[in-house]
Amino acid sequence: MRIGVLTSGGDCPGLNAVIRSVVHRATADHGDEVIGFRDGWKGLLECDYRKLDLDAVGGILARGGTILGSSRVQPAHLRDGVERARGHVAELGLDAIIPIGGEGTLKAARLLSDAGLPIVGVPKTIDNDIAVTDVTFGFDTAVGVATEALDRLKTTAESHQRVMIVEVMGRHTGWIALHSGMAAGAHAIVVPERPFDIDELTARVSERFEAGKKFAIVVVAEGAKPREGTMPFDIGGKDMYGHERFAGVARQLSVELENRLGKEARPVILGHVQRGGTPTAYDRVLATRFGWHAVEAAHRGDFGMMTALRGTDITLVPLAEAVETLKTVPAERYDEAECVL
Amino acid sequence: MRIGVLTSGGDCPGLNAVIRSVVHRATADHGDEVIGFRDGWKGLLECDYRKLDLDAVGGILARGGTILGSSRVQPAHLRDGVERARGHVAELGLDAIIPIGGEGTLKAARLLSDAGLPIVGVPKTIDNDIAVTDVTFGFDTAVGVATEALDRLKTTAESHQRVMIVEVMGRHTGWIALHSGMAAGAHAIVVPERPFDIDELTARVSERFEAGKKFAIVVVAEGAKPREGTMPFDIGGKDMYGHERFAGVARQLSVELENRLGKEARPVILGHVQRGGTPTAYDRVLATRFGWHAVEAAHRGDFGMMTALRGTDITLVPLAEAVETLKTVPAERYDEAECVL
Amino acid sequence: MRIGVLTSGGDCPGLNAVIRSVVHRATADHGDEVIGFRDGWKGLLECDYRKLDLDAVGGILARGGTILGSSRVQPAHLRDGVERARGHVAELGLDAIIPIGGEGTLKAARLLSDAGLPIVGVPKTIDNDIAVTDVTFGFDTAVGVATEALDRLKTTAESHQRVMIVEVMGRHTGWIALHSGMAAGAHAIVVPERPFDIDELTARVSERFEAGKKFAIVVVAEGAKPREGTMPFDIGGKDMYGHERFAGVARQLSVELENRLGKEARPVILGHVQRGGTPTAYDRVLATRFGWHAVEAAHRGDFGMMTALRGTDITLVPLAEAVETLKTVPAERYDEAECVL
Amino acid sequence: MRIGVLTSGGDCPGLNAVIRSVVHRATADHGDEVIGFRDGWKGLLECDYRKLDLDAVGGILARGGTILGSSRVQPAHLRDGVERARGHVAELGLDAIIPIGGEGTLKAARLLSDAGLPIVGVPKTIDNDIAVTDVTFGFDTAVGVATEALDRLKTTAESHQRVMIVEVMGRHTGWIALHSGMAAGAHAIVVPERPFDIDELTARVSERFEAGKKFAIVVVAEGAKPREGTMPFDIGGKDMYGHERFAGVARQLSVELENRLGKEARPVILGHVQRGGTPTAYDRVLATRFGWHAVEAAHRGDFGMMTALRGTDITLVPLAEAVETLKTVPAERYDEAECVL
Repeated sequence: MRIGVLTSGGDCPGLNAVIRSVVHRATADHGDEVIGFRDGWKGLLECDYRKLDLDAVGGILARGGTILGSSRVQPAHLRDGVERARGHVAELGLDAIIPIGGEGTLKAARLLSDAGLPIVGVPKTIDNDIAVTDVTFGFDTAVGVATEALDRLKTTAESHQRVMIVEVMGRHTGWIALHSGMAAGAHAIVVPERPFDIDELTARVSERFEAGKKFAIVVVAEGAKPREGTMPFDIGGKDMYGHERFAGVARQLSVELENRLGKEARPVILGHVQRGGTPTAYDRVLATRFGWHAVEAAHRGDFGMMTALRGTDITLVPLAEAVETLKTVPAERYDEAECVL
Repeated sequence: MRIGVLTSGGDCPGLNAVIRSVVHRATADHGDEVIGFRDGWKGLLECDYRKLDLDAVGGILARGGTILGSSRVQPAHLRDGVERARGHVAELGLDAIIPIGGEGTLKAARLLSDAGLPIVGVPKTIDNDIAVTDVTFGFDTAVGVATEALDRLKTTAESHQRVMIVEVMGRHTGWIALHSGMAAGAHAIVVPERPFDIDELTARVSERFEAGKKFAIVVVAEGAKPREGTMPFDIGGKDMYGHERFAGVARQLSVELENRLGKEARPVILGHVQRGGTPTAYDRVLATRFGWHAVEAAHRGDFGMMTALRGTDITLVPLAEAVETLKTVPAERYDEAECVL
Repeated sequence: MRIGVLTSGGDCPGLNAVIRSVVHRATADHGDEVIGFRDGWKGLLECDYRKLDLDAVGGILARGGTILGSSRVQPAHLRDGVERARGHVAELGLDAIIPIGGEGTLKAARLLSDAGLPIVGVPKTIDNDIAVTDVTFGFDTAVGVATEALDRLKTTAESHQRVMIVEVMGRHTGWIALHSGMAAGAHAIVVPERPFDIDELTARVSERFEAGKKFAIVVVAEGAKPREGTMPFDIGGKDMYGHERFAGVARQLSVELENRLGKEARPVILGHVQRGGTPTAYDRVLATRFGWHAVEAAHRGDFGMMTALRGTDITLVPLAEAVETLKTVPAERYDEAECVL
Repeated sequence: MRIGVLTSGGDCPGLNAVIRSVVHRATADHGDEVIGFRDGWKGLLECDYRKLDLDAVGGILARGGTILGSSRVQPAHLRDGVERARGHVAELGLDAIIPIGGEGTLKAARLLSDAGLPIVGVPKTIDNDIAVTDVTFGFDTAVGVATEALDRLKTTAESHQRVMIVEVMGRHTGWIALHSGMAAGAHAIVVPERPFDIDELTARVSERFEAGKKFAIVVVAEGAKPREGTMPFDIGGKDMYGHERFAGVARQLSVELENRLGKEARPVILGHVQRGGTPTAYDRVLATRFGWHAVEAAHRGDFGMMTALRGTDITLVPLAEAVETLKTVPAERYDEAECVL
């Protein structure tokens, strides 16, 4: 068999572990040939690739990033490229393509699969928001990095009698905020799924101080939004350069809380450290299993599918289902955390 | 409600997180009172306990060990103590007991439950060998510690052209060996479930050297045993003091491999570092959820049960089922790892 | 002897290790009594303190923050309080006061010492900018945290072909930037000691891309400033709320570099994680030695002095010298780093 | 200029950082050519080398081990090879050789230097026992790894009321034991410099238990020896295979303490994890500076010298002095630690 693999979308710890696993299983066990397309779908569309043998994937299991590079490709651009992709697949004699990526990538994968290309997807997102799998690799690493930062910030907040507003990743869902907040014992967690009320948040922190505590840690997902009509200022406004990205929710919350509470409040935006670097053991194992099962699916001819974790098993689910709904944090998980607003 | 909590058996990262979660949920949300028995079942039998309020569990979420202490109690001793335990439960006016522990603890829990005491168990084992739950807290931390050590040993082995035999925990099952070995890219994994053949192991390492590689990492679970008749020496023999515990499988394998391969082989026994210290974020979240759901079960009167993870949900399973079978590593997981002997 | 200890100024990993060491040496070895003033000089001025015995400092060696709390006190305020401080010292029968703090704290220490109070200072700053000591505790931890973040960011930058501008602490000196930048192999380091020229920075990053590299990491100290007349925009301007603190150099550099290079550039501001959490082994040892020697100095009557590291020895230097000059990064250290602008 | 570099002796975190620094400074700044000999002196004697340019050292700064490989060569063997080495140096047109290694390597370096070869040594030992430099790289990483393990073991010991005997590296000196023991708050530290008395050790641990403490941590350097006549058994005896290396001091102390105290005692031998893996930021900076200054020394013609850290400066010391005496832990450092026997 001849297999093409590619990584697409934002960085995610574990990408290299999937690539390595695909190459190991395919070449060492099945005697397949594997090539890797450079920079995601772009590599397929432009027929830019390299051969991947055992040596090529030596030592990459624990390395962050992706040895293949990545890029974001516009869906429209890909739609126009279906015939070109088909041509390259034929030309290269590929029997299977294994794209590793998030929501956008999987939508693209479905498009190509519907057009008849032999695709087995591997889901990837640090946000953990793909509904058909229990977890995605990268999430555990992101939560671990955020939790370690929160552990560190706690002692500073305590010694200095401060409110720390810590912004973690999660544009549409609050999984990283929920898990890191629970793991670090945050005093309030603000998630995109439940628009927040600044009065409630202030009251919660205020109660804590009234009970004699000297600091508070608030974890907020970057995509958190105020309940309509409850915030006196415009979250998401532009900065002095007209760039939207600089106006973060943590920064604005810290100003607002400082004004309302009369206590020092400081924003910390963890940013890209959450999505880079060596993956946790958990993510390496999950990524390795995904890669192994993707190759098996290809050999069985199970195309148009995506690997998924269900309980302790790796299963396959149709690509069509994979991207239908976002996996948001369910309300019962808020209760367990006890501090989601 | 009045709830008694205790921790029993070997150390396990996440115990304090469960205790904290029980206290938070019970006292802050339900208005319950919580007491903690000292040193496991011993505390219940001797009525040795302390009050646990929010202050008592402040700052313990990320701390290893157990603030309540632990001990191993003989089943026979406990059997004789049932009436005493019942008396103390009545005397203290307890409505529920939440024991947190491994196989032995859960068996004891079942015994007391069968005797009519109101018990909700919380499973705990770094070995991950309890069948009715997908995972137990402590396992992820143990795998993480072992993987970090393996990552470090790899560069040393490589620079010095050596075989490293790394012994990890797992007396009856190979879960830690399997996951840390997969996560670190070990070249051979030896687990208790599949007695090993020293000739096969030698051959595997030897092939690697013949292929031009300059080192090999072998991960072996402490409980690994040679296939009957295949090992020329007695694994598990006693040391010069007559202590069994000093004769480890890694040490004996390294002698044997060095003799057979003519390459330096070095044993490393990770030991107790795997079960101590701050839990990973994963284990803290799981432990917190277990504690929360144990309190809920108590309030619903769901006694004789144990918390368990199934997929992403926390469920309850009868204590009777909990300890029936050991969860061993299934054969298909060996295949995925590609290097289990 | 009766000794009072206090911690003042910003958080710094190792404060608790000093406190513990003072208490161990003084009480266990000398039979002294130790009290700890709450919240820095404030505690001395308001006679707010607690007794510190061995139990009080149990388990704090590895903990971040300070069990005594801290605050920043205005020099003028302290000047007015000298007589009050003297009164409290007499009232409490104190034979020595050990203040642990940075530049401001040491200036205050000198003031009180000049007024005749028996003071032995312990220097503290993550910035490493106190001239009379080779290093201060806290610095190694800050550099370690920053380096770990840089290690993580590197793989992300590489996979996504980006420039990452990482802002680390250092308002007046570039020590953290220099060491973390060297440790992580940054491609440019920008320090306050040497005002930067945006054209030069652009040229350096540009050359890297022209040489075929796909990413660049720039480490910038928060206090870095453009060479006069070279920056088209105003670094340090105010944000939409009129707060200075939100206008960081990393954010502005990333906008500027993105515009000039036509490559994605992203700012990451590490912030308070650098000054909180468990200290490195290096910082714990240094802090412990400082505490031990401060007690010895007190017993010898060496007042008006401060502990310092010189080579491998702990020595004492006059408080008067301690705060005279800031220790800036010398030019020859730039050369070694090879990438300081 | 043409420079040859080699790494020799045991693994040590920071070796790659030196190699990288030598190559960067020499090739990028001076326009030199650099070659790396494979497997230490062996590579020089057998003229086995590879070219080292900027690409060859890309990404190795944070990696443990050595990309050049290492080996231990017998001094006698090297003595016989001086002429061969001289011949290869001439043949390859080398203007300088930079050997990176420990005591044995530096002795060999001196031998070749005395024979007229142009040598600038770089000292390397995790044991920190080279007298003419304040610190050697690798030491900080080893201490950090040991401290992290001790932190983890503490919670386990505490929960289970145990004595933990933790064996760290240090055959002739107790630096790692001293620093990790101080950093982790060990209750007794046993070093090779001061032969221990088992009665004293027992008494110290015993006192602790009598004072109501429930556990104790003893750190022991692998080279620790009993005071003559004080130990009832033979430390360093052979195991069942006749191998000396398996009879560690920690194992024997734990048996002895368990017998004498009637408390569970457990040995943990940290082993090779201390000398592998990614170096700390401290070690990366020190290693980088050593490499840079070695190249500068070569360009100045300062041969027969070795780089050294004195305070915050990198200096050069004659190779002749470098290996004269071992740097042992001085008595005053025991006092500071307060628990060295």
